[in-house]
Amino acid sequence: MNAEIIAVGSELLLGQIANTNAKYISSQLSELGINVYYHTVIGDNAKRLKQAITLAESRADCIIFSGGLGPTKDDLTKETIANHLQLSLVTDHEALGQIEAFFTQRQMPMTANNRKQALVLDGCEVLANHHGMAPGMFLTYHNKTYILLPGPPKELEPMFQYEAKPKLAELIHDGGVIRSHVMRFFGIGEAALETELDTLLETQTNPTLAPLASDGEVTLRITAKAQSDAEAEQLIQHKVQEVQAIVGHYQYGIDDDSLASKLVDVLRHNHLTISAAESLTAGLFQSEIAEIPGAGDVLIGGFVTYTVNAKTHLLGIPSSLIDTYGVVSAECAVAMAQAAQAKTGATIGVGLTGAAGPTAHGDEPAGSIWIAFVIGDQLPVTKHLQLSGMRNTNRLRTVKYAYDAILKQLRHCGYDIQL
Amino acid sequence: MNAEIIAVGSELLLGQIANTNAKYISSQLSELGINVYYHTVIGDNAKRLKQAITLAESRADCIIFSGGLGPTKDDLTKETIANHLQLSLVTDHEALGQIEAFFTQRQMPMTANNRKQALVLDGCEVLANHHGMAPGMFLTYHNKTYILLPGPPKELEPMFQYEAKPKLAELIHDGGVIRSHVMRFFGIGEAALETELDTLLETQTNPTLAPLASDGEVTLRITAKAQSDAEAEQLIQHKVQEVQAIVGHYQYGIDDDSLASKLVDVLRHNHLTISAAESLTAGLFQSEIAEIPGAGDVLIGGFVTYTVNAKTHLLGIPSSLIDTYGVVSAECAVAMAQAAQAKTGATIGVGLTGAAGPTAHGDEPAGSIWIAFVIGDQLPVTKHLQLSGMRNTNRLRTVKYAYDAILKQLRHCGYDIQL
Repeated sequence: MNAEIIAVGSELLLGQIANTNAKYISSQLSELGINVYYHTVIGDNAKRLKQAITLAESRADCIIFSGGLGPTKDDLTKETIANHLQLSLVTDHEALGQIEAFFTQRQMPMTANNRKQALVLDGCEVLANHHGMAPGMFLTYHNKTYILLPGPPKELEPMFQYEAKPKLAELIHDGGVIRSHVMRFFGIGEAALETELDTLLETQTNPTLAPLASDGEVTLRITAKAQSDAEAEQLIQHKVQEVQAIVGHYQYGIDDDSLASKLVDVLRHNHLTISAAESLTAGLFQSEIAEIPGAGDVLIGGFVTYTVNAKTHLLGIPSSLIDTYGVVSAECAVAMAQAAQAKTGATIGVGLTGAAGPTAHGDEPAGSIWIAFVIGDQLPVTKHLQLSGMRNTNRLRTVKYAYDAILKQLRHCGYDIQL
Repeated sequence: MNAEIIAVGSELLLGQIANTNAKYISSQLSELGINVYYHTVIGDNAKRLKQAITLAESRADCIIFSGGLGPTKDDLTKETIANHLQLSLVTDHEALGQIEAFFTQRQMPMTANNRKQALVLDGCEVLANHHGMAPGMFLTYHNKTYILLPGPPKELEPMFQYEAKPKLAELIHDGGVIRSHVMRFFGIGEAALETELDTLLETQTNPTLAPLASDGEVTLRITAKAQSDAEAEQLIQHKVQEVQAIVGHYQYGIDDDSLASKLVDVLRHNHLTISAAESLTAGLFQSEIAEIPGAGDVLIGGFVTYTVNAKTHLLGIPSSLIDTYGVVSAECAVAMAQAAQAKTGATIGVGLTGAAGPTAHGDEPAGSIWIAFVIGDQLPVTKHLQLSGMRNTNRLRTVKYAYDAILKQLRHCGYDIQL
């Protein structure tokens, strides 16, 4: 079975909102193993909607509509489909009762146009709307399946998940399941990953492999079709091991992990705490850790030392060190890391300093950045980056490189880092 | 002129990402007065892409493509268009130089597939990519305009705005101009703003007014059509003054201003400096200031004091104060603000403490937050928030409330705050 998603709404074409419904529905269909070949967005226009339906019927088994089920004149999705399929619209009394109750509850007068929301395609199965007024519809007609969903994501998502998806699963039921996992990598580009995995990518059948780059990271989605969950998981785990044998060094996590959440997990698991002194990142390293629930177990606190004065006064770094090596130096980064560790008593102290850009910092070009950290009483580790992004991309990237470098060093030192 | 946007990428059809590029491009086209009747999304599939191009050519004057310009085998947008239009692909040597420089700078080996990124449609105008490797293309051919943009929003948005949009504006130039400005508000909801501006919204013709809520802020876009820039600007300025007469108290800025950039501007202009001690926000307040170029003139640095120990040890807050009032208290926030000010010598010291959620913090419910700040030797200002969002939304919201409260207090004290 393959599906096409048609979103109806001029606000989408005006760029007021993004079509997040298509993303949501697509990810749900992907889980069911239903292929989606097209998303289409059109405005509140009956003629163009009709053309879009005709086209979709020529290439898809299932057409899913979002939007245009509301009470106003420009809501015309079901009217247009009814006209196109030559079906009538009939009042669904259960939906009408809910709409009337909605207004009674709020002690608001119900305007007449709200009755229009209870009209459904004759012969369809009605999909209940537990978060709004307009009901959805599920109709199989002349061998095509039509699913009509309301536009607001808060109404559409639960309606799809709990009302439409089970009906779709029933339709396509063949005893099989589809499962996928995402492997997450840092420190390798998408092109390099594909080159490394060339043979695996060329010969993929089941599971399939799909690499994707975003925000300086690369992910690899592994999707398996099988007769049972267990069998699909086994296929995926086998493929994960093949991939790890080639590029495992770059993998930091799986599925919903982020570098920050992985670091927090590893620190908690190993009873380690962390502190930082941040110059160019100015608190971002610590703030992203604090985003993760449970960060309180590992993040003690630390310093933002944006100016030279802050580095000497708050951290006690000697002016002579800064005079000799400059603030963008391995020496300064190490001194910052050691001060953060010493002043907070954290197991790990981190120092981040550099020229975020857009301008150079003295002799140091924009994007020249030093990361340093100290784990316990080990020797400090330093890493130099030469980034070429915009100021803020460089700051975000620095934080990711720092998380990744600490994770790799912890693994190198024999700490438990389960992937 | 009307346009159609074709996004290419299987990750969109799999529901891994939303088509935010179509939203961005549509909003930009709307400013130019170009109608968009269709968004189409297709996967990395040459046959379906070719069909989509043929269909788009039958109904649009301008076709804008996003995605599929990268180095890998499944990037096939320009190859398919070249084949469809029977044009060849030629190496753009400037783009190739930039790609080579990218790898040299990072001291990474350049794999051969990266050279593919420098290929462009013969006869096109090349759109420079200042944030990535793949160049864009602008081609007018047989009376149709084809614009090819890279998929990552960080690359696509500046390329569209600074490279493609001016060329489009030239194409559609008819002696008239369309200009718009965005007024930015904080501390008032969208519905309340609409109610306040009821009469203005009801009677709008030219300029038009479009309110929009996002991330706890509300914006009002004012768009004017006129015969000249000067005339359009005059129409907009007149409307801005009418709006300010009603809700000016809530306005913090205009166009590309953010609360953080506005605060940095105002502090620089008035030769003030700032420091903070952050608990729940853990560096976010300072980091967002550091995002703004020129932040070095106003941000000295400060503290992340996530634990009680960090508050007593790094800031010197007496344990007795914390025992008496708790860490989520006006007293603790004020002590943090005063310590940040005293220890850094900044003009303004800020203290942020609270229960970000998802769990309560002792007796304090999730979302209970105290903001305190001291300007020079004035009495401290405190503000309590009871937020109801998710953990990270609450942390972001806290930072915005703090910026806004400081700006309002500076205006109240007679500092120069030009809007």
